Amino acid sequence: MLTLYYSPMSRASRIIRLIDELDIWSEIEIRRVSVARLDGAGGQDPSNPHPDGKVPLLVHDGVEIWESNAIILYLTDLFPKAGMGPVAGDPLRGRYLSWLAWYGNVVEPVIVMGAAELSHPILTATFRGQAEMTERLVRALEGSPFLMGEQFTAADLLMVSPFTWAPASTPDHPLVRAWIERCDARPSAERTARYDAEQLQEAGVA
Amino acid sequence: MLTLYYSPMSRASRIIRLIDELDIWSEIEIRRVSVARLDGAGGQDPSNPHPDGKVPLLVHDGVEIWESNAIILYLTDLFPKAGMGPVAGDPLRGRYLSWLAWYGNVVEPVIVMGAAELSHPILTATFRGQAEMTERLVRALEGSPFLMGEQFTAADLLMVSPFTWAPASTPDHPLVRAWIERCDARPSAERTARYDAEQLQEAGVA
Repeated sequence: MLTLYYSPMSRASRIIRLIDELDIWSEIEIRRVSVARLDGAGGQDPSNPHPDGKVPLLVHDGVEIWESNAIILYLTDLFPKAGMGPVAGDPLRGRYLSWLAWYGNVVEPVIVMGAAELSHPILTATFRGQAEMTERLVRALEGSPFLMGEQFTAADLLMVSPFTWAPASTPDHPLVRAWIERCDARPSAERTARYDAEQLQEAGVA
Repeated sequence: MLTLYYSPMSRASRIIRLIDELDIWSEIEIRRVSVARLDGAGGQDPSNPHPDGKVPLLVHDGVEIWESNAIILYLTDLFPKAGMGPVAGDPLRGRYLSWLAWYGNVVEPVIVMGAAELSHPILTATFRGQAEMTERLVRALEGSPFLMGEQFTAADLLMVSPFTWAPASTPDHPLVRAWIERCDARPSAERTARYDAEQLQEAGVA
């Protein structure tokens, strides 16, 4: 059994979008929990088993799977039919694993440290910065409409996610802007936004 | 064909250790390159195809695989015989993916920001801090000698790696210290250190 711990308009929303792209709504039970928000609202939900009270958390037959990129990889491997990510043995598997890992290892720290307006030589040496992040995306998008090639995959789904809620961190480059538009044009984007809005309203009423 | 771009005593050293644990020395060509060091030594090596001049970089039949945790997952999937990580279908697969992702998403940022002595509410909200990192490790090690259970896996290999070169960031807890000792006692630790030392000497002579 698969259970997703989710909160509206959070990092868990991209797992909702993946569920929609994989068309596995009937395979996963979604439990809405509250989380501590940056503005001080909400708080750690005792019904959320995540030790830091974060979302998303996926539980599969009692085993907890945390971190968005790990959950995404787990689900695209478990439900390969939709072609949302190359499975083991595919020549592009390594590139897929790298985009998912790079998102967490580099893109989130760069965006978060940018939002906090922090800089330090050790940070630059470790994560580089916005310019290198943009350069990497542009290089990938010069040759193809999506990060992995002709097809939208979960690598795009994850990578585009911060740029829809943090436009200030969005690389200012025509290739990147066009890619964001292509990603946003998929029906899963609107369905996820609608799901989030409905859940937010229900949570407010409850 | 597999090629690893490596520099002695760098983040690539853990891939050397994994090669040793998987016993696949004959399967991978290792190319030593220079990298920019924090003390200003070295510099980006034109023979290193990594766009940011970083190591490790793995190239498999022309496809570049970057980010340590992605490379580790790729190799333990490609060479499953040594049991260094549960493959797809194993009930513990999700936990393995989560440890690898969490290392890059949380542990490295927490250690790096600690080393830079930076703090900010957005950083805390995103990554939490040293206390939560320690708590997570302790919880895992309360029930078993290694992160995944009875057996040393690549999750331990990756997670223990910063604590051997950044003792200041090492969680001060007896269970964590005992786990580090168990990891360090494996022959791969000494063989990797010897390999690094030899390569460092060769690089100095060259």
